[in-house]
Order: sequence, then C-alpha cells, then structure tokens
Amino acid sequence: MSHILIRQGELDFLLWDWLKLDQILQSPRFDTLDRETVNAVLELSAKLAESDFLPHYKAADARDPWLDDNGDVHVLPEIGEALRQFAELGMFGASFAEAYGGMNLPIVVNSASQSQFMAANVATSAYPMLTVANARVVVEFGSEAQIAKFALPQIAGETFGTMCLSEPQAGSGLGDIRTRAEPDGQSDYGAQFRLTGNKMWISGGDQDISDNIVHLVLAKIPDADGRLPEGTKGISLFITPKHLPDDAGRNDIAVAGLNHKMGYRGTANCLLNLGEGRFAPYGKAGAVGYLIGEPGQGLAMMFQMMNEARIGVGLGAAALAYRGYRHALRYAMERTQGRALDGSKTAGNAPIAIIEHPDVQRMLLVQKCYAEGALGLVLYCAALADRGREDDAAEQLLALLTPVAKTWSSEWGLVANDLAIQVHGGYGYTRDFDVEQLYRDNRLNPIHEGTTGIQGLDLLGRKILRSDGVPLKLLGEKIAQTISRAEKQSELAQHAQRLRDAWDRVGRTVETLSAADAPRALANATHFLFGFGHVVVAWLWLDQAEICASAKTGQDEAYRLGKIRACRFFFEVELPKIVAWFDVCASLTDVAVAVPAEQF
Amino acid sequence: MSHILIRQGELDFLLWDWLKLDQILQSPRFDTLDRETVNAVLELSAKLAESDFLPHYKAADARDPWLDDNGDVHVLPEIGEALRQFAELGMFGASFAEAYGGMNLPIVVNSASQSQFMAANVATSAYPMLTVANARVVVEFGSEAQIAKFALPQIAGETFGTMCLSEPQAGSGLGDIRTRAEPDGQSDYGAQFRLTGNKMWISGGDQDISDNIVHLVLAKIPDADGRLPEGTKGISLFITPKHLPDDAGRNDIAVAGLNHKMGYRGTANCLLNLGEGRFAPYGKAGAVGYLIGEPGQGLAMMFQMMNEARIGVGLGAAALAYRGYRHALRYAMERTQGRALDGSKTAGNAPIAIIEHPDVQRMLLVQKCYAEGALGLVLYCAALADRGREDDAAEQLLALLTPVAKTWSSEWGLVANDLAIQVHGGYGYTRDFDVEQLYRDNRLNPIHEGTTGIQGLDLLGRKILRSDGVPLKLLGEKIAQTISRAEKQSELAQHAQRLRDAWDRVGRTVETLSAADAPRALANATHFLFGFGHVVVAWLWLDQAEICASAKTGQDEAYRLGKIRACRFFFEVELPKIVAWFDVCASLTDVAVAVPAEQF
Repeated sequence: MSHILIRQGELDFLLWDWLKLDQILQSPRFDTLDRETVNAVLELSAKLAESDFLPHYKAADARDPWLDDNGDVHVLPEIGEALRQFAELGMFGASFAEAYGGMNLPIVVNSASQSQFMAANVATSAYPMLTVANARVVVEFGSEAQIAKFALPQIAGETFGTMCLSEPQAGSGLGDIRTRAEPDGQSDYGAQFRLTGNKMWISGGDQDISDNIVHLVLAKIPDADGRLPEGTKGISLFITPKHLPDDAGRNDIAVAGLNHKMGYRGTANCLLNLGEGRFAPYGKAGAVGYLIGEPGQGLAMMFQMMNEARIGVGLGAAALAYRGYRHALRYAMERTQGRALDGSKTAGNAPIAIIEHPDVQRMLLVQKCYAEGALGLVLYCAALADRGREDDAAEQLLALLTPVAKTWSSEWGLVANDLAIQVHGGYGYTRDFDVEQLYRDNRLNPIHEGTTGIQGLDLLGRKILRSDGVPLKLLGEKIAQTISRAEKQSELAQHAQRLRDAWDRVGRTVETLSAADAPRALANATHFLFGFGHVVVAWLWLDQAEICASAKTGQDEAYRLGKIRACRFFFEVELPKIVAWFDVCASLTDVAVAVPAEQF
Repeated sequence: MSHILIRQGELDFLLWDWLKLDQILQSPRFDTLDRETVNAVLELSAKLAESDFLPHYKAADARDPWLDDNGDVHVLPEIGEALRQFAELGMFGASFAEAYGGMNLPIVVNSASQSQFMAANVATSAYPMLTVANARVVVEFGSEAQIAKFALPQIAGETFGTMCLSEPQAGSGLGDIRTRAEPDGQSDYGAQFRLTGNKMWISGGDQDISDNIVHLVLAKIPDADGRLPEGTKGISLFITPKHLPDDAGRNDIAVAGLNHKMGYRGTANCLLNLGEGRFAPYGKAGAVGYLIGEPGQGLAMMFQMMNEARIGVGLGAAALAYRGYRHALRYAMERTQGRALDGSKTAGNAPIAIIEHPDVQRMLLVQKCYAEGALGLVLYCAALADRGREDDAAEQLLALLTPVAKTWSSEWGLVANDLAIQVHGGYGYTRDFDVEQLYRDNRLNPIHEGTTGIQGLDLLGRKILRSDGVPLKLLGEKIAQTISRAEKQSELAQHAQRLRDAWDRVGRTVETLSAADAPRALANATHFLFGFGHVVVAWLWLDQAEICASAKTGQDEAYRLGKIRACRFFFEVELPKIVAWFDVCASLTDVAVAVPAEQF
C-alpha cells in the first residue's frame, strides 16, 4: 500500500470505533450490508486509487485540459481511463439505492471511499463527485422519465454531470444571474425551455471522457413582460444535456473558454455559452433545458447538491492535507540534517533525521491535528447525513456543521499543506515533489462552493442567529457528553475542562452577537467561524482521544498514543487561538465596517 | 503610474516622515546627496520597474529557464534586457561608494528603490540583489586585485554574482558541506585552490545575461591527512568565476540541472557540479577558486552576505504582499456582488462593490497591516544598517531584528497574498490574474536564506538567550519612547497601553525561557518568533500612527486616517494572537519533543 494515501487503520478507527458504523448498518435500509462488505469496498477503493488515480497526478497538472478547433475540450487520456475503471467497479453508484443500480452504501462509507481517490488525485475525483451529486438531485426531484434518462446513466458512470450556478458577473450573489429560460412547450422529459446565458466556473463543463454531460443549470423564467424576476426566489433548475436525448444532436451549449487554474488542473473548468446559436437543436437557437421540480424552486434543490458538495470540498481538503502530511512524515524520517539541540551525538557525529528536531515535530503535529482533524470532522458530518434520514436532530446538527466542515478543512488543510512544503525545505518548493502541487490544489477549497466569508455568514447568520437555537443546543449536549466521558481519564481531564471553558466562551459570544445589531454582528462572522471551528474540532479530538485512552479500539498502542498526543497538542497549542477570535467578536468592533475606500 | 507598485507617497512617508532620512543624510558620508536626488532615484526606480520589469512578469513564469544541449542555461530574453537597462542607469552600484563607481546611496534608499523592482518582478530583481550582495563581500574582504577583477564588474552590472552555500545533503546544516578545496599555488588573485563538489539551490547559478558569473563558494580545505575539518569552523570562502580571468577559458563548473520551482521562476536555480572534469582550466580538472579572507573564516564572511540577503528576502516578501494588496484593492472597488448587510439599497437595487462588504474590508485591512507593516519593518532595519555604521546600538538592534524582518514579512506577506486571491474569488485562482503568481512567488520566502525554524533559533537562541541582554533592552527603550509619545494622542492611548502589556509579556516569556533548560526553551523558538514578531510590528504601527495622529507628515488626511485605522486594526484584531504563542512558550510544553516516529 502506498504510504501517502489514507491509512486503512485510520478509516477503521474512525468508522467502526468512533462513528459506530455498526449502529448505522443496523438500519433496515442497510440489511444487505455487513462489515466485511464495507471493508472490501474500502480496500478496493485504496487499491484503485493507487493503481489508477495516483499515477497521473503530476501528468494532469503538467498538461492542462485543452480546447480544440471545434470548440471541444480534451483532458489527459489517463483521467478517462481511471474513471472508466471507477465506473466498471460500480463506484459511481456506491451511495445509490440498489433500485437505481447502486451499492446502497451509507454516505459515511462512500465518503471514506472517496477520501482515497481524493488523496490520490483530487482533480480526477472531482468528475465523479459532481456526477454523483447531480444524479442525486435528479433522483430526488426529477420525474421518472428524467431519472431514467439522466440519472441512471450517471449512476452507471457513462454520463457525467455538472452544476451550473455562477455567471461571470454573479458567483456568491446568485440572485443576480441573468440566464434566461423561455418556455418551449412540452417534451418527453417535462416542460421544455430554451436557455440563453453564460455560465462560469463549470467544473467538468466539457470533456472527452463521458458519452454525454448532464448540466444542471440555474436560470430565470421571464414574467409576462419579459423581465427576469429579481433575487433568488425567481430561480428555476433545468436539466440541460450536452447531447439531446433520442439522437436529436448537440444542444446549443458552446465552450467559450477554459479557466487556467493554479492547481486542480485535471478538472476542466469552463465558461459555457448557452443559446449563442452555434447549434440549433430542433431547428432553432437556444439551449434546450427540461424543468426539474417546480419553477422558482431551483435554488432550494441546488442547495441539496451544494450541501453535499460542501462536505465533498471539506473531504477533498482533508484528503489533500492528509496526503501532504504523509509525504512530510516520510521525508522527515529519511532526510538528515543538523545535530540535536541537546548536544547528544549520533555515531560518528552524523547528522540526525530531521524528524528528531522539535520544530519539525511541531510541524508534523500541526499537520496531524489538521489533516486527521479535518478527516474526522467531515466523516462525522457524513455519518450525520446517514443518521439524519431517521433522526431530525442529526439533520439539524449536520446543517450547523456543514459550513464548518467545508471551511475548517479547507483553511487549515491548506496550512497543513504549507507546512508539508516547509518540512521539505527547498525541495518542497520544486515541482519534483508532490507537496508543491497538493498546496496549489488545496488553495481552491476556501473559494469554491461558497467562499470562507459566505460560510461565516451561513454559520453565524442563518444557522445560529436566525435559527431557533436548537442546533447549537444539540451540539452543546454532544460536547457535554464527551466532556463527561473524558473527565474520567486522568490524562484527558485537563482538556475536558478546557473544552468546557471554550464552549462557555462560544455561548457568551453568541449571546453578545445576538444582542447586537445584525449587520454589526455579521461583520465579525468570519472570526466567529474560525473560533467556532477550532472548538468543534477540539471536541472531536477529545472524543477520539477518549476512545484511545480507554482502549475502546483495536488499534495498536502507537496509534492510540499518537491520537492522544495530537489531542494534547491541539488543546495546548491550537485551542488557545480562539481567545483572539472571540475577543474580536465580543468587542463588536467596527474597525472593518464602512472604511472609506481612499483610506486603504 | 501603475496602481500595483509601491505608492510614492508611502515611500515618502516612511523615509522622510518616519525614518528621518534627512538625519541619516547629515552624515558626512552622504555629503553629495540631498532630498531631491534621493527622490529622483526613487521616481526613476518606479518608472524603470514599470517599464522594464513588470511587462515580463507573467511571461517569465510561463517560460521556465531552460538548459541547452551544451549544458548552458537560458532565460527569457526580456529578463536580460531589463537588467541591461538597470545596469545602464547605474542601479547595480546604487549603494556602493563613488570610489567603486557607485551612487553612494544610503541602504534604506537603496532598499526603497529595490522594493519597486521586487513588486514589479521579484524573480528578475533577484539577479541584482545577489550580485550586489556578492560584490559587497568582495569589496569588504577581498584584496585590491580581487576587488578590481570581481567586484567592480558586478557593481557595473556587467558580471553577476551568486552565493554557493547549500549542497544536496546540506542546507540548514552547513557544517556538513563536502565541497573540497585543494591548494593549487598562487595566482594574481591570491591563493588558488581547486574545488570539487556539488552546490544546490544556486540562484542565478547560470544564465545567458551577464558576461561572467562570480560564484562565492563555501568549501573546506582538507587537513594534512586529506580529511575535511568537521563543523562550520573549517569552512573557507572562494571566488570561483564561471569564466577565468585573462581569457583563460571556462572554469570547471557544470550545470547538473535546473530546479523547477512553484514560483519565482524567472530566477534560474541550479545544481552546479564543481570539478567534475568537464572543463580543465590550465590543463587539469577542478574548479579554480581564489581564497578570499582567511581560511576558516568563510561562514563569518558569508553571513555578512546572508544578513543582507535576509533583509532582502523580507523586502521581497513585503513588496509581493504590497502588490497583491494593491491588486485586491483595485478589484474590490471594481467588482460588484451581493447587497449590503444592513439592507440599504443602491439605485435600481444593483449589486454593490465588494469593497463595501465588511468581510472584504477585513481582508483588505489584514493585507494593509501585513504589507505596509512588513515594508515598514524592513525599511526600519535598512535604516538601522545605515545608522549602524556610526552607532553600535543600531547595529545590535539590527542583529536582533534581522530574523524578524526576514520571517515576519515572509510568513504574513504570504498570508496577505492568500487573502488577495480570496478577495478575487475564483478569478484569483486563475493564471489570468497576477495574485495567483504573487502567492506562488512568495511561498519561497519562508524557506530560502534560512527557514522560519532556523530564524526562530537565531532569534531566541543566539540573539536573546545567548546574548548579554543588551539588544532586547535597546528595543525595550525604543518601544517605551513610542508608548510615551502615543499616550498623548487620545485615539492611540489604548493601543499604547496594550503595547506596554505586550512588551511586559515578552519580558516575562524571556525570563521563563531563560530559566529553562536550553533545548526545552528552544523547542518553542518558532512560537516565540511569531509572538515577538507581532509585538515588534505592533510597535512600528503605533510609531507610524503617532506621526499621523499628530500630523507630523505632509501626507493627506485619507492617508493619515488609513494608517491610524490599520494601526487600530492591528491592535484590535492581530495583537491578541500573541497570547496563544506566548502561553505555549510559557508552558514550556514538551508536547512536540521526542515524539516517537510511530506515533505520527
């Protein structure tokens, strides 16, 4: 097994010992699944990730997707070959019900499986991630005909999917999209519309891998006067395939350009022009789109996909951080440099392995805390998604934690990748070492599927200040349970006390922010998100450490001591940072409000 | 003037109003210089940076230096053209005495001039930075013949220079270098040696711009038994030109390979093989090197170059951060997205400029604090270098602050560049926008010329724990003076109190660390460096804000209010972070000491 993917023991611990996957499997929904089957899928994932996703990691970075003279996009052939293998093994359908040709795996198992592909090659694994999320929307909200025509081929991995939200002038502010959908009668796949507009940042927007591409496009249906409704409430969702069904030829979708990214390059990212008239399906211009769900419900449906994608972004960030950490660890054990600070000598006074230097140990522990912390956080959320089908509390908790899982993993995962470079010294700054690319790849994650600033507003505004307070209370109960278990372990008792204090601090901060004028409170949303994220991850570290300290796991002693060590590091070195973030929130400072532009 | 270089008003304020350049110019050393001349050089620098350095910024990134079949390195021709302009205007000699053909500018003026070239194109400006630092070593330690042959052509910008310290197996630990220097008689340029070994990470190690390249090479002279002395004390320094003097042909130096970097690509970075026998100067293998200074004094001399280079790295990092900030500011003023948090509406309910969103203002203020803070810090150090020629206290303060100037600018400058991308959203992640490249370029700075970990050991170990305490005391006096001035300004009084508390905290932390076992204390050196750096920069912000608040500057009101605002932001949002770093130091934690490798 490759030393750079997620350790099988890690997934064992997280899934079975910590997240109690056996309980999840007891649901009647999973009556055909057992531990052996799940582990077989995870082992297969690791193998396939290593054999088919990893080898072209650097090649896909060196060779950006390209546009040919016909306006078609091509990607490195190895990407297509890997995804055909992935499809052949049924992995596109991993999380779908058997009725749709899927394996019916719990979401948390599917996420654990995905983590290996993302660690091996995040850009290649973006295609199935988007395809699966797209198909899930169609399965949930589409008609039978739509499911049969557009979801099933995606679940089989023959057709790929995209989500088309942003436009050049509208990304975070989707209410301002201008893509127009004019009614065009009925079709076998529901109400038919003709779409015109420009869609930006479309990952997988075109490629030469799959037989077809199903775009889920947000657009607005004009009113009787031909005007587009204002704001997000007028947005509808349309299934807009590249090739029309029933051999009706190309849809009126043209690739206007490719975005050349810093990293994540294997994922072709396109500007698409809809309805520019280059193709004229059924004899006239306009991209044919089939309405899915009700008019005006587009954003609500898309947010189902978006929430899944946000967890997926967090998972990718965690996987990139984890892989960087593993590279750095290996390098630190092999590279020799310098002498021990305490003056102790090696045989022949040779240089020591750099892992023996405390500052390198510090950098590795930070990476361990961030990478394993992020992986734990995201898988915890995935398990909530499974439990949420039968448990409203889990669903509420998931909604609260989604912006945290997305952002904490992205922001701190990137810091972990930064430190993986630093451990490598100059070598890490060269394209000969993978840590350089991991860092560039991960830099996307704080941006796409809602920037960090947007996640802060979502957490503090929507999920806390404008909620009924229940999600936060539910989280508090979970944290209290962990504290009460951890207090019984002498080596964790101090951390438990610190977590109690930290959670009190969260509560007091929320009180202050609730009492304030909303815009003033929200001006500090990003600081709040950072502080809150660190408290959440401290809790998850303590929860895992308690299992290790009380030996409620079959993992070996070094593994358990490593988790307890990382937990201690997080409480001693990382958690103290929350004071700065929460102090800023509590001060309700207006230092960054209404600053005149000329003062910058 | 380009909106992305350093503002002329910024340099005016820093040099004249804050650093009191007029006092420095009163030294008899500068009796031919006046304010008008200095400002003319600065204006010329900005113009040349814009006309000749900026235009090939992206082109040099897209086209890495390349090696031809003869083993010679080529760089983008525009780099050479820009540097020939730079030479023609006498800029290589800016900081050298007139006797050497220089302009005799103070170091702080030269640094301000350089900041424009670095902002425009940090990779191109690395060639003169290294050349100037090399020439300064030769001028200071070389014989007359060495100066005439090797320093003057560099000061004229005809020949370029490098520093050859690292080897593939020895970077941070230079005591382990293996390059061997065998005595080879006398020459017109002093004692001649034959060098064999491999030198790694040599910036400008080969190129097709200058007529010759002067390598300053660290190597060891074997003892009578042919053994190389152990440790750093046996290291000597050798002038090792690519082309031998007096038309004696190529020296035995071969380019074994180019390093392909994440950024900073225009600077050709080479692995050089010395004495591999490809060339045989004077009929035998071995690279000809001329001893400079005394045997065994190599590292001491090289550290003069290194200290200058560390300030130079800090300056480059500050310039990159500053330029990123300027890009982000421009973008934030032009890009519209979303609506105001307070529900206020624009005409026609159009989206607002993103600079009006508090989180964007926050990101811009962080960048302003980091970019302008770093520029101030580095220029403060440069002014100390000028004053240090006549003032021992200034020299001691400079030695204390050098690791801070190098690291604080590199680490936080990189965070500023990260936020410049974030302000741009998805666009910032594409290679169409310069912020993406600025971020990749800046990622080198925490690594080269001594990593952040090495700077931490230098600051805490050498400059504080193993010093007589004078440098820290001198700094404390400066800080007390600023506090006493700032207290008199009502809007700064609270910051002054916070700075007093922060400095007390530094003192208590140093006491704790001094009382501890040295290896345990040094295990926390990086945390100390981060905390100390933030206190130092808080002091410099307050010092500048006091000038603005008391209107002791001719800059306009918006500029002054902007500085006072940024100072307030630094004290409210940034300075509180020191608690976490100093708490960790004070706890003398051993959480990252002697962790068994299998626990990672």
